[in-house]
Amino acid sequence: MTKYVYLFKEGNAKMKNLLGGKGANLAEMTTLGLPVPRGFTVTTDACLRYYEDGEQIGEDIKEEILTTLEITEKTVGKKLGDPMNPFLVSVRSGARASMPGMMDTVLNLGLNDTVVEGLAELTSNPRFAYDSYRRFVMMFSDVVIGLSKSKFERILDEIKEEKGVVNDTDLSADDMKFVLKKFKDMYKKEIGKDFPQDPKEQLFEAIKAVFRSWNNERAIYYRRMNDIPSSWGTAVNIQEMVYGNMGEDSGTGVAFTRNPSTGEKKLMGEYLMNAQGEDVVAGVRTPYHIDHLEVTNKAVYDQFMDLSSKLENHYHDMQDIEFTIEKGKLFILQTRNGKRTAHAALRIAVDLVKEGLLTKEQALVKVDPKQLDALLHPMFDTKALKASKVIGTGLAASPGAATGKVVFSAEDAKEMHKKGEKMVILVRLETSPEDIEGMNISQGILTARGGMTSHAAVVARGMGRCCVSGCTELKINEEKKEFYLSGKTYKEGDWISLDGSTGIIYGERIATMEPEMTGDFATFMSWADEVRTLKIRTNADTPADAKQAVKFGAEGIGLCRTEHMFFEADRIRIVRQMILSETKEQRKAALDKILPVQRGDFEKIFTAMEGRPVTIRFLDPPLHEFLPQEEKEIKELANDLKVDVSEIKTKISDLHEVNPMMGHRGCRLAVTYPEIAIMQTTAVIEAAINVNKKGMNIEPEIMIPIISELKEFMYVKKLVVDTANKIIKDAKVNLKYSVGTMIEIPRAALLADEIAKEAEFFSFGTNDLTQMTFGYSRDDAGKFLGAYYAQQILESDPFARLDQKGVGKLVKMASELGRSARSDLKLGICGEHGGDPSTIEFCYLTGLNYVSCSPYRVPIARLAAAQAVINNR
Amino acid sequence: MTKYVYLFKEGNAKMKNLLGGKGANLAEMTTLGLPVPRGFTVTTDACLRYYEDGEQIGEDIKEEILTTLEITEKTVGKKLGDPMNPFLVSVRSGARASMPGMMDTVLNLGLNDTVVEGLAELTSNPRFAYDSYRRFVMMFSDVVIGLSKSKFERILDEIKEEKGVVNDTDLSADDMKFVLKKFKDMYKKEIGKDFPQDPKEQLFEAIKAVFRSWNNERAIYYRRMNDIPSSWGTAVNIQEMVYGNMGEDSGTGVAFTRNPSTGEKKLMGEYLMNAQGEDVVAGVRTPYHIDHLEVTNKAVYDQFMDLSSKLENHYHDMQDIEFTIEKGKLFILQTRNGKRTAHAALRIAVDLVKEGLLTKEQALVKVDPKQLDALLHPMFDTKALKASKVIGTGLAASPGAATGKVVFSAEDAKEMHKKGEKMVILVRLETSPEDIEGMNISQGILTARGGMTSHAAVVARGMGRCCVSGCTELKINEEKKEFYLSGKTYKEGDWISLDGSTGIIYGERIATMEPEMTGDFATFMSWADEVRTLKIRTNADTPADAKQAVKFGAEGIGLCRTEHMFFEADRIRIVRQMILSETKEQRKAALDKILPVQRGDFEKIFTAMEGRPVTIRFLDPPLHEFLPQEEKEIKELANDLKVDVSEIKTKISDLHEVNPMMGHRGCRLAVTYPEIAIMQTTAVIEAAINVNKKGMNIEPEIMIPIISELKEFMYVKKLVVDTANKIIKDAKVNLKYSVGTMIEIPRAALLADEIAKEAEFFSFGTNDLTQMTFGYSRDDAGKFLGAYYAQQILESDPFARLDQKGVGKLVKMASELGRSARSDLKLGICGEHGGDPSTIEFCYLTGLNYVSCSPYRVPIARLAAAQAVINNR
Repeated sequence: MTKYVYLFKEGNAKMKNLLGGKGANLAEMTTLGLPVPRGFTVTTDACLRYYEDGEQIGEDIKEEILTTLEITEKTVGKKLGDPMNPFLVSVRSGARASMPGMMDTVLNLGLNDTVVEGLAELTSNPRFAYDSYRRFVMMFSDVVIGLSKSKFERILDEIKEEKGVVNDTDLSADDMKFVLKKFKDMYKKEIGKDFPQDPKEQLFEAIKAVFRSWNNERAIYYRRMNDIPSSWGTAVNIQEMVYGNMGEDSGTGVAFTRNPSTGEKKLMGEYLMNAQGEDVVAGVRTPYHIDHLEVTNKAVYDQFMDLSSKLENHYHDMQDIEFTIEKGKLFILQTRNGKRTAHAALRIAVDLVKEGLLTKEQALVKVDPKQLDALLHPMFDTKALKASKVIGTGLAASPGAATGKVVFSAEDAKEMHKKGEKMVILVRLETSPEDIEGMNISQGILTARGGMTSHAAVVARGMGRCCVSGCTELKINEEKKEFYLSGKTYKEGDWISLDGSTGIIYGERIATMEPEMTGDFATFMSWADEVRTLKIRTNADTPADAKQAVKFGAEGIGLCRTEHMFFEADRIRIVRQMILSETKEQRKAALDKILPVQRGDFEKIFTAMEGRPVTIRFLDPPLHEFLPQEEKEIKELANDLKVDVSEIKTKISDLHEVNPMMGHRGCRLAVTYPEIAIMQTTAVIEAAINVNKKGMNIEPEIMIPIISELKEFMYVKKLVVDTANKIIKDAKVNLKYSVGTMIEIPRAALLADEIAKEAEFFSFGTNDLTQMTFGYSRDDAGKFLGAYYAQQILESDPFARLDQKGVGKLVKMASELGRSARSDLKLGICGEHGGDPSTIEFCYLTGLNYVSCSPYRVPIARLAAAQAVINNR
Repeated sequence: MTKYVYLFKEGNAKMKNLLGGKGANLAEMTTLGLPVPRGFTVTTDACLRYYEDGEQIGEDIKEEILTTLEITEKTVGKKLGDPMNPFLVSVRSGARASMPGMMDTVLNLGLNDTVVEGLAELTSNPRFAYDSYRRFVMMFSDVVIGLSKSKFERILDEIKEEKGVVNDTDLSADDMKFVLKKFKDMYKKEIGKDFPQDPKEQLFEAIKAVFRSWNNERAIYYRRMNDIPSSWGTAVNIQEMVYGNMGEDSGTGVAFTRNPSTGEKKLMGEYLMNAQGEDVVAGVRTPYHIDHLEVTNKAVYDQFMDLSSKLENHYHDMQDIEFTIEKGKLFILQTRNGKRTAHAALRIAVDLVKEGLLTKEQALVKVDPKQLDALLHPMFDTKALKASKVIGTGLAASPGAATGKVVFSAEDAKEMHKKGEKMVILVRLETSPEDIEGMNISQGILTARGGMTSHAAVVARGMGRCCVSGCTELKINEEKKEFYLSGKTYKEGDWISLDGSTGIIYGERIATMEPEMTGDFATFMSWADEVRTLKIRTNADTPADAKQAVKFGAEGIGLCRTEHMFFEADRIRIVRQMILSETKEQRKAALDKILPVQRGDFEKIFTAMEGRPVTIRFLDPPLHEFLPQEEKEIKELANDLKVDVSEIKTKISDLHEVNPMMGHRGCRLAVTYPEIAIMQTTAVIEAAINVNKKGMNIEPEIMIPIISELKEFMYVKKLVVDTANKIIKDAKVNLKYSVGTMIEIPRAALLADEIAKEAEFFSFGTNDLTQMTFGYSRDDAGKFLGAYYAQQILESDPFARLDQKGVGKLVKMASELGRSARSDLKLGICGEHGGDPSTIEFCYLTGLNYVSCSPYRVPIARLAAAQAVINNR
């Protein structure tokens, strides 16, 4: 029979999955003999049963709860609902992973109209008793019944006004009794029944409310952001109440065993005497620094110091401890690994290793890889930020902080730049490949449309540029050069600021600070490199990106997109000429002009990578993406090429596609226009030869995109090999190169054994593979994904975190089929997922050779790859 | 060791795969003791080796050919290249499946400057010898060297003009000698070498040319049209020449053992005396009816009659026989199952069973299911057709013949119809769902854009309406109401005709004939029904389609698209109102108005199906498809709804999608707007209850489209079940219904075991599954598929014939996974592929319960399903 309820003394820290983090830690501390208020935990299994049973607590579980309650009552020597000796409890959530503030809590449970009288007498403190009861009524109504807290607060405020006092503490016992009455009257008026008087009914209702709160909106959102599956459920902890508000010999506080901002090894804490936890949070009275306790109560201070260092040593990590002093007696209410800034995380990890409390490997798994991101981008000056006005939020599309003057087109950004105004923020409905240069010189990008993998988001992350995308409230008038948000119109030149790590938009200028890479960072990352087996490459299209990535530790380029080079001002003209060619000869003539430019690009990238492997993907997007969209530009192009405007418009309309994502792109371009593939091969091979002459040893990897069939790959490979071998032979050099493919079309994954006979490497293009496998257009999915998250049909963005079940099944299948045909097949991933820690673990387990991600994700990937090894030992 | 060369006497009719059809039949006839000129066959394996070896004949194969040649020479008593007793041969292609006229042939091989003199002497017929040689020079140059025949024909014409004669036969021996000289001179001038004199070199070059011709353009095209894989290769037959042009006691002819047009059991044939095969084809002299031979040479006539009936009895099928009479001696050069019209095919099949020559099952596999199509649609009057002017060709998108006056919009079609002019042909750039009514009342549809599965093609096939799509030369000016094609402008009201079975467009009115279903048709189809195990359903959205399909033998509806009902004039207004709703309440109000209309539709369809099962697919297309696109209509809508034009335009632009195929559609609409699914459920269930009250027994099958995840299915299923059960309970009736899904997204196929836990049936939506699996947008793929066919990357249109290797792997996987979770899972297919015979065989082998196809394909599917059983016994 499943056991659904555990006394604290029956559990331990390893039982997190069953007891939740809080419950497991309470059990562990109980076992360690620490002064923990007594109680028990209803397991996460019980929560899952609750949902299975149609949101009810099964009779068997109810019985188990009551039995365990009885045992606890005996130990404590008090009884729930007994006015003579009342047992009062807190009912708190506690999931496997810490989800601070996301779920619900009920305190002071067990009070009713008779118990309150007993409590008043027992404690000789009627004010305390009525205060506790009215707090309970308010909390229970809010959490269990759904009667908003604010209604109660309004009553309290009215009474305080009547009495002419400011603080709750200024109200007398009788005042509190009056408040209580008003609260209960309001409850009856709103709900139509009296406030429940049966403590057991209170208890079960509170437990159910905590279970329910697992699926409240903010919990769902938090889980999605933190990759926590909804299938885990939450545990519920029922614990004896202790009171910090029983007079001046009582108090409550919170402490961190080390500084959570800097990581400094020094206890940092605050407390308030004669108060409950919520008073500390509310911030009405200024709490004391923990050191002050040494002065007022040295014994308790010493005991706390002793316990906190014991806890840190026990958990081998910085602890975040909640404590209460009840009439001079210290209780530990909770301990957990403390949340900390990225800087602090690294320092603590490195220090703990130095102190011998952790091995390097243990330290490596203590830091959340995603946290590293904060160390790599500019940040807002925290002080400046506090006073700043939030005018909206969008998606946190690319991290970092940016401040600048608003511009509404890439052209204007460039214009401002020329005039010496480098601080600009590009605001667009959505960005397109033509905007790249403007994006690159902007401090940040803000868009009204597009998700986490929209053009703006992907390109910005690649550049390490701050970006907030998909701010749906943003109304842009590009013509007038203004936008409207949060009740105000912002014009070109107005200052705004963006936080790409939170998605928040500020309506003013805010100072930013450049990131520093501390020594701890380097030390810590070197440990990660020792452990990991996956190689980490980067997605980089420019020499600048390549250099940045090498600085961050990239070991090669996994995806060099050749089309981004086409958009620069000096070449887009020739590219358009190529596209508008009527004959093969015209097209070849244009390609001949592109060749030296593209060769030069490759030389620079090869040089930047200093001999590290580089995978070059051949032209991928549909050709219409290169053509101008605006009347003015079309006219310019027509002048330029000396043709009619109408001719160009016809061509643009001819190239239009209903579903460009599944249209004439990728290798399909090479099949219809082989001369493009031949030009690109020539550029790659000649560049490699030139660079190798200078002493490098580049072995280019040519990657054919959008392959769905072996014969298609063979056709393009033949173009590449014939061209390359002739150049190599004519140049009388030795140059190794390889030809492989992206696996991004489901059919290629299904038939990977065939394709691997000819392809020397696979790189999983999981962006497109996700699109095709789900049938989701990432440009359009925003319209329904919101509803999908709300209904918990999806728990995470499949474009950010690889869908291991579906898309991952194809990746696994393709890996196995591919290796069955070619045992040394090189496997990598180059989709956006390459920088996602959970995906990296999946790639490690699937046997991939490398992951490739944007330069700013390289450190994250290095750490995640190390953790994958350690966590799967 | 592989044997690459077979003497005729070493083979038999069963060795078609190795010897090709022609070679196998020559071998069979040789074994039967028929008078077949002697020879041998180089196998299809040798052809594959030829390509593997880089288009060369391996030395081992060459040696084997020479050895076999020597044996043949000994048997015949002649020798290749021996002027005293020359062995002359024909070199002919012969693939596994008959591909008439697609590949190359060389006759009279073995002649050279000395052999021709010997031949002249030996036959005492120098004219014959020189004529044969000059024919050989011309044919060899054309086929082997690629020197165009027309150049030789010009020389011949010049000489005839000089001599003042009309026919070749009027040229003397000396004239022929002169022709020959001129031919050889031209050869030398063009090629720079003398005409090859070594007969063995001639032989190997000719064999290579035949191998090469396997991959000429027309052969590739023919294979694609007839589902013949390029991996089969062709065999080459080297056979002793016999001559029908050796005087008036020689001749050549062709005969069918039954009438290939009507199927009548009467030998039908033609012959020419003193002629070679090509003369018969050229049609210069009018051939005699075969009966005439009885008069001129009764012995040969009787022998031929005897042989032809022997051959028909031996092959149990109508034979197409080529014969030659050399100096009074009869030779059979080839026999094969004769091509025949659909009418003839059925009559012959039924007759052969009556005559006891075939069992029913044997008869069933003799008829190509695709041929039945011709029996179901109107046809052109053959006589009227001959004189008609072809003005262009497009894709043969939907079969049948149509003639009518050109209109350029659905509106105009309706206008003409109202005026009593029912004969119209709708000419559009491409069609959209708004055009449906106009398409339905037109005789045929012609579009400039769109492939075999474009909107026009799919809808037209569904309606059984003739359609030619994707005529890229067609320049339409919709404003001026005219189009330009083949040098001429056609205006509204001008007559044109379309042949939807060939894609040919005629610039005038041509009489058409309605199809007749003969008694043979009914008999034959009843045999198919006895054998098949697959159920045949139809895709039908209207009562008319449903009735038509039942007439054709449909056993249920596999796909009833609910959105097509939305486009009719009386409801599109309300649908648009629903889409433009700002709130759930507005949307519900509009849906309340749609409900009775939709319920009425279902009642009519259920009634038409008379209790047969009906699968109803819930709303599938993205909502923007329902909104107007043209200014005028937008204005009307704005007036209608009393809102601003700009408001409607904003909504249209909001709903715009970059890749609508992968956008907000299918079940995603039900997740975001549950009220739509609830309305549709209500309509289906209430309609079923109403119809069942009238004594039917409908059990509706509700199908949720575009599912990619179990939880998504569960969410929508719950809406359906809650709604349906309440209605059924309130109505106090018993109504069974089931809820299933389309499998059309790769992820659903990959996770089919999960989905099958909740879904009661799967219907494979192979249109979308093909799109997603290949990453091909069927609207856009036309831009590159041409190149893919030309390069033989694809051998057939994956939207017409299921890609069994890739998409089929998913179908198989989903079937197995699905049945593993639910053993009685009902499986069907409802994509366009449901009517394709090869796909039907695949579905049978995969264990599907039914296929569903458009009404006009039902008979084809019935026969194909029977053949699948028989061919896989």
